[in-house]
Amino acid sequence: MQTIRLNQQLQFIIEIDKLKNVLRQTLLIDASRRENSGEHSWHLAMMTMILAEYAPEGTDIFCAMKMSLIHDLVEIDAGDTFCYDVEGNESKAQRELQAATRIFGLLPQEQGKELRLLWDEFEARETPTAKFAAALDRIQPFLHNQQTEGGTWRIHNINRNQVMQRMAPVEEGTPKLWNFILEEIENCINEGYLKNS
Amino acid sequence: MQTIRLNQQLQFIIEIDKLKNVLRQTLLIDASRRENSGEHSWHLAMMTMILAEYAPEGTDIFCAMKMSLIHDLVEIDAGDTFCYDVEGNESKAQRELQAATRIFGLLPQEQGKELRLLWDEFEARETPTAKFAAALDRIQPFLHNQQTEGGTWRIHNINRNQVMQRMAPVEEGTPKLWNFILEEIENCINEGYLKNS
Repeated sequence: MQTIRLNQQLQFIIEIDKLKNVLRQTLLIDASRRENSGEHSWHLAMMTMILAEYAPEGTDIFCAMKMSLIHDLVEIDAGDTFCYDVEGNESKAQRELQAATRIFGLLPQEQGKELRLLWDEFEARETPTAKFAAALDRIQPFLHNQQTEGGTWRIHNINRNQVMQRMAPVEEGTPKLWNFILEEIENCINEGYLKNS
Repeated sequence: MQTIRLNQQLQFIIEIDKLKNVLRQTLLIDASRRENSGEHSWHLAMMTMILAEYAPEGTDIFCAMKMSLIHDLVEIDAGDTFCYDVEGNESKAQRELQAATRIFGLLPQEQGKELRLLWDEFEARETPTAKFAAALDRIQPFLHNQQTEGGTWRIHNINRNQVMQRMAPVEEGTPKLWNFILEEIENCINEGYLKNS
């Protein structure tokens, strides 16, 4: 017998399939096509597992993994906003809040609330767990851009300052990887993947 | 400074991007295209979180989630074998073992071993955690086939007996959902999504 509770959970599981059709600006590492937010979320959850040792003290890795999995669900309604799109980012917060209410609202009440709190925590970037998850969310597309010899940076004419600003949360979110990022930015400039200014 | 350890971890993270290009037989729920194994793994990890309450006693949900994330990595080398392809499934085990050795072998030794043990546990389907993860791995494409009015079942002329055999691990892996599956199989037959014999 399919209870109301199970039915709500299944409707949520069916609804979130749409995230596989939300395209990001990021290219796959083989540059064959743009990445979607479903597979991006998988990659991020994998990074949470593999890079757990670089998390700041007090990080709950299970929680960070769940955050990685759910962090982009709001894009089903709000779409993916390119991180360097100034205008799009002004309306982003409002659009995403509405999306969170609808999408997490599909679940049984207490379960939806639990996921919403997790998403709120991710967005607020105040706890070590959220800071770690946010840092990895910056590092993942950074690696793609480095591996595709500039990828989206070249397409959108992005420069060092913009990347530095975008990557700033890494310093606090996973301080042990900050030097690696700084070095790689220099390498990318030297290789011509990223403009100096 | 990029240590050897970090370098191995990054090479693994870059390598697994290839899972986003491994196509499964399953269609997305909007039937627009075939699903890839990266986004499938994300969907499965989400189901692990949402359906945790239906896991058998003794299941470690964090572990089941990690299993969901890594269970298909071997397909990067071995490809996705359609579950109803008898010939392909005869050589599958050997191809996947070789792939596991190479892919988990990219990681620092003890980390690669940890993931390999997790994958071995998933494949053996002996622990409650592995049984739960395997059951969800059957339910996910089942939902896609139901939602796409027969999807891959129709394309490949699959019948009730084949689906019953394929879904059998659900009975033990998440017994609380077994009745739902049995009912849905009947519904799919009544709707003409699945052949009776």
